[in-house]
Amino acid sequence: MNTLNPGDTILIYETGYFSNRWKSLAERLGIKVELIESDWRHPVDSSRIHHILKKDSENLIKAVCVVHNETSTGVVSDISGVKRAITEAEHDALLMVDTISSLGSIDYDHDKLGVDVSIGASQKGLMLPPGLGFTAASERALRMNATSKFPRSYWSWEEMQPHCQKGFFPYTPATNLLFGLQEALKMLLDEVGLEPTFKRHERHARATRQAISHWGLEMLCQDTACASNTLTAVLTPGNVSANSLRKLISEKFDMSLGTGLGKFEDKAFRIGHLGDFNDLSLAGTLSGVEMGLRLSNIPFNTGGVHAALEYLAGSID
Amino acid sequence: MNTLNPGDTILIYETGYFSNRWKSLAERLGIKVELIESDWRHPVDSSRIHHILKKDSENLIKAVCVVHNETSTGVVSDISGVKRAITEAEHDALLMVDTISSLGSIDYDHDKLGVDVSIGASQKGLMLPPGLGFTAASERALRMNATSKFPRSYWSWEEMQPHCQKGFFPYTPATNLLFGLQEALKMLLDEVGLEPTFKRHERHARATRQAISHWGLEMLCQDTACASNTLTAVLTPGNVSANSLRKLISEKFDMSLGTGLGKFEDKAFRIGHLGDFNDLSLAGTLSGVEMGLRLSNIPFNTGGVHAALEYLAGSID
Amino acid sequence: MNTLNPGDTILIYETGYFSNRWKSLAERLGIKVELIESDWRHPVDSSRIHHILKKDSENLIKAVCVVHNETSTGVVSDISGVKRAITEAEHDALLMVDTISSLGSIDYDHDKLGVDVSIGASQKGLMLPPGLGFTAASERALRMNATSKFPRSYWSWEEMQPHCQKGFFPYTPATNLLFGLQEALKMLLDEVGLEPTFKRHERHARATRQAISHWGLEMLCQDTACASNTLTAVLTPGNVSANSLRKLISEKFDMSLGTGLGKFEDKAFRIGHLGDFNDLSLAGTLSGVEMGLRLSNIPFNTGGVHAALEYLAGSID
Amino acid sequence: MNTLNPGDTILIYETGYFSNRWKSLAERLGIKVELIESDWRHPVDSSRIHHILKKDSENLIKAVCVVHNETSTGVVSDISGVKRAITEAEHDALLMVDTISSLGSIDYDHDKLGVDVSIGASQKGLMLPPGLGFTAASERALRMNATSKFPRSYWSWEEMQPHCQKGFFPYTPATNLLFGLQEALKMLLDEVGLEPTFKRHERHARATRQAISHWGLEMLCQDTACASNTLTAVLTPGNVSANSLRKLISEKFDMSLGTGLGKFEDKAFRIGHLGDFNDLSLAGTLSGVEMGLRLSNIPFNTGGVHAALEYLAGSID
Repeated sequence: MNTLNPGDTILIYETGYFSNRWKSLAERLGIKVELIESDWRHPVDSSRIHHILKKDSENLIKAVCVVHNETSTGVVSDISGVKRAITEAEHDALLMVDTISSLGSIDYDHDKLGVDVSIGASQKGLMLPPGLGFTAASERALRMNATSKFPRSYWSWEEMQPHCQKGFFPYTPATNLLFGLQEALKMLLDEVGLEPTFKRHERHARATRQAISHWGLEMLCQDTACASNTLTAVLTPGNVSANSLRKLISEKFDMSLGTGLGKFEDKAFRIGHLGDFNDLSLAGTLSGVEMGLRLSNIPFNTGGVHAALEYLAGSID
Repeated sequence: MNTLNPGDTILIYETGYFSNRWKSLAERLGIKVELIESDWRHPVDSSRIHHILKKDSENLIKAVCVVHNETSTGVVSDISGVKRAITEAEHDALLMVDTISSLGSIDYDHDKLGVDVSIGASQKGLMLPPGLGFTAASERALRMNATSKFPRSYWSWEEMQPHCQKGFFPYTPATNLLFGLQEALKMLLDEVGLEPTFKRHERHARATRQAISHWGLEMLCQDTACASNTLTAVLTPGNVSANSLRKLISEKFDMSLGTGLGKFEDKAFRIGHLGDFNDLSLAGTLSGVEMGLRLSNIPFNTGGVHAALEYLAGSID
Repeated sequence: MNTLNPGDTILIYETGYFSNRWKSLAERLGIKVELIESDWRHPVDSSRIHHILKKDSENLIKAVCVVHNETSTGVVSDISGVKRAITEAEHDALLMVDTISSLGSIDYDHDKLGVDVSIGASQKGLMLPPGLGFTAASERALRMNATSKFPRSYWSWEEMQPHCQKGFFPYTPATNLLFGLQEALKMLLDEVGLEPTFKRHERHARATRQAISHWGLEMLCQDTACASNTLTAVLTPGNVSANSLRKLISEKFDMSLGTGLGKFEDKAFRIGHLGDFNDLSLAGTLSGVEMGLRLSNIPFNTGGVHAALEYLAGSID
Repeated sequence: MNTLNPGDTILIYETGYFSNRWKSLAERLGIKVELIESDWRHPVDSSRIHHILKKDSENLIKAVCVVHNETSTGVVSDISGVKRAITEAEHDALLMVDTISSLGSIDYDHDKLGVDVSIGASQKGLMLPPGLGFTAASERALRMNATSKFPRSYWSWEEMQPHCQKGFFPYTPATNLLFGLQEALKMLLDEVGLEPTFKRHERHARATRQAISHWGLEMLCQDTACASNTLTAVLTPGNVSANSLRKLISEKFDMSLGTGLGKFEDKAFRIGHLGDFNDLSLAGTLSGVEMGLRLSNIPFNTGGVHAALEYLAGSID
């Protein structure tokens, strides 16, 4: 809404449910979307982006849109590769990235990566309730804002920007969450530090994968090198309903797992391991899954929690 | 965004800063606005609306927009009169009402009044932090939604409606505020009741006016019969800076008064008397104003608090 | 319990309900109490203490007990005068002081005053819920602890002392209140400072007396120079029930005033003005009293709040 | 203090650190204590109580004192057996029981068991911060209160009783905790029910013992039939310092285990499994212990968590 114009074309790489929500959101706004289709089980293949941009000699594609960490699948994509693909194709498209489930948990640097528009939210790695959204924009994105003709008011950068520079808002903001944000940033930046936070998420993701591998279950993400550090999606075997498992675990162990989304509806469940979360939270979480598996009819090998604990104990500083 | 089309014309009655923000918001969206100008010191004159609609035999005006309780001026308008003006002009325009600073504090019934779109928010009479907005729509407004062609996604009714009917949201809602809302509604509807709440606000507004009248100051609202029950704006005499007075009161008494807005910037201050507020909160508030007046160079008669207490004690059940 | 022995004699100066509770508490423990009787309306007269100690050449009196700020009457006594009376009588008695409603609100320095045992609590000037008690003991009091033969366990200093020096407790302490205490002390000592806190309480007490004097009511404390800075007790005239007035104010204005205690039961009410409390809290409080007086049959002159505001505005920095 | 007299004799059964604290507490108060010594690893043997009382034909023993659930050892004793021992010995001694770590978590009925004095506290099964104590007294205990001559005031039943019957206190109570207690009782009695709460604790204790047994570690409690449902104490093998293990687990996994007390100082650690605690909390807790064991030099068999999960999943309703 803030950089493009009605009728513009953008390129969205299909990584999962949220890339596709981005597509439908854009189409609702009258933007044409070229979607690079995928099986939702692999990260962005930058060469496909490069290939398409290379052919678009007239620069009809105005933006390349990528979800950094696909919350629906637990697959993380290499944003520097996407940036390189655009640069090497000598293309003008803006690079836009959704960092909602990675911001503050998985290394990501808007400026260094040369991203044009990054968006984030309060309710994941920032450990707050939902209610705040964040946008970072490059100089180039701000220049394009001046020529963007979408009818807009509430979300418009040109209204927001002059206020923000003075620490104000053009309308009543969610004040309570701003106080919470102040505390969250103090914890992340001053008390713990970003690097240790990133490492903690990485350890927890590895431990989770140890459990899943031991259980003999299949991760939705087929390329472990690109598996997310903040959540892991797991397929239930055969025709077993993932939602029945989730319901069972919620009823018996008071733990809410994420549902499979879109094409994995009822076929996968998602384990979140981000935010205010430590080794014992993870152990409790994985124990809930393992006990749920026992109580269901899903064939699996017990001992996944054991394997995760072995990894965790073996990898501590 | 949800009922009109780009290029449509709407009629906004100028009641103050927030009616005019509505105008600029609409214009940003590409809607033509016909503004019925006023001095900001009187309520809506429905006959002017009737007159304009009567002349618009082609039904070019698609909506009539009115702020119920102008937060910038403390003037409340008669919505039933506006509705009658539309009906008697036999005009098709939708009636849209901003109830942000009256909802739950001043009597207002979307259905009985025959309003088409009402909007409200969490941070005033509902006693919550900012972060929730409310929309009520008539059957007719919902029908017009189907033909409305604005590019929209986040705010779009057609995305929201099917989810809301099942108690869900199409995206992550501000969950904490929903829990707060549950409590606020329990207090308002079950424990206190709306009628006693409306009466409490009326008594506090009357007591505030007793103080102002005694001080010899002038209310921004020139028609006492239409003075707001939730806030009262007061003019500072001559060239005295209202913001200096506000700053003084904030520093000396730790009380934040509302600033004069728009054409009354630095010429008026606003006293809020709504939400979780009782007789002694009001007494403390008015005492802060009276002591601030004493410490400033503003000519006034002391004793306004005394007059307010006399009224409050004399009007209690 | 920690410094004396069963059958010992102590001298308690009757200042009001709480000095007399001290007496009955001591008598329950098997201590003989010599009470210097008074009318509850004046502070300690140190010459009477001096006179009694002077005659006690055998040092039979083991302690002199004084309430610094009598919470039941709003009379504050001069502890340095009491100390001088003991010293000049060349008497061995310990000096014990109850600072429950003055600690942190009215200047008091255990060490400089040469007090032997001071006691305080969390729920007044320290702005916390009830649940913590504090004891400060002089070197001499600690030595007497060694020869004190009372059966004691929970309250015994000899159990508490070695733990406290390491920051521990001999039993499970009220942990939540200790966190609260940390914050309260940060506010009092670091953010505001004790001197400004003492001055604030003094201003509020003076303003309260302006109101009472204007109302034509009589303070329980007959010597204004010794009136408390943290609470003010007021007599109702004639046979008017103070408790009826308190009930009325509680019902109509949701404000709870202190009850008259002991010999002033139903004849006085008490206004607290301590803790987390500012000018506008006081204005609201006095407004509640003034409106209550109006609604009762008590003869009084209206305008006390007005007088208090005049004083407050005139005395601000 | 409330039922006995100075110089009286009582019989305390040594169950562990807290029975012995009771002894030293009583001796500080001037009561003679006959202690039935034990190795701290077994529950009360009622026949030994019966034997002693039988010989005490003059009824010199005024009370039999037993800790229901020894917090220092995790051994629970059969109170009905103790009661029977007293009754069958036709002895007059009062029965006094410490229920601090069992109240609300392990079945205990003061009236049905015929106990004379039961004491409890807020900070265990009632899920509150520390700061409240509870006493239940039989009719006979109340009668003995009338002839008890201990010097007492703060804890004295005769001061407390008349107030409590009206819902008041003779002094300022810890009000915040009373609000908390109201909620805790609503949860325990109305929402969950006592029976399911007792069963939950039993399941968690059994699962904990599965883990310990699998690890090849030794429980402090040598009679599993009498192992506590709210906490489990575990011995470290050989000369391994239990406190080093506790420190390691606290540093690496941010989990605080109970220390070994008294004769088991540095030789045991204690796992609490009571209060607001579910299956996954237990899984996290046991995982912290197992990972701590791995990181220490303690010989053990891995897989205890696995065994606990097997038990938990197999025993769920």
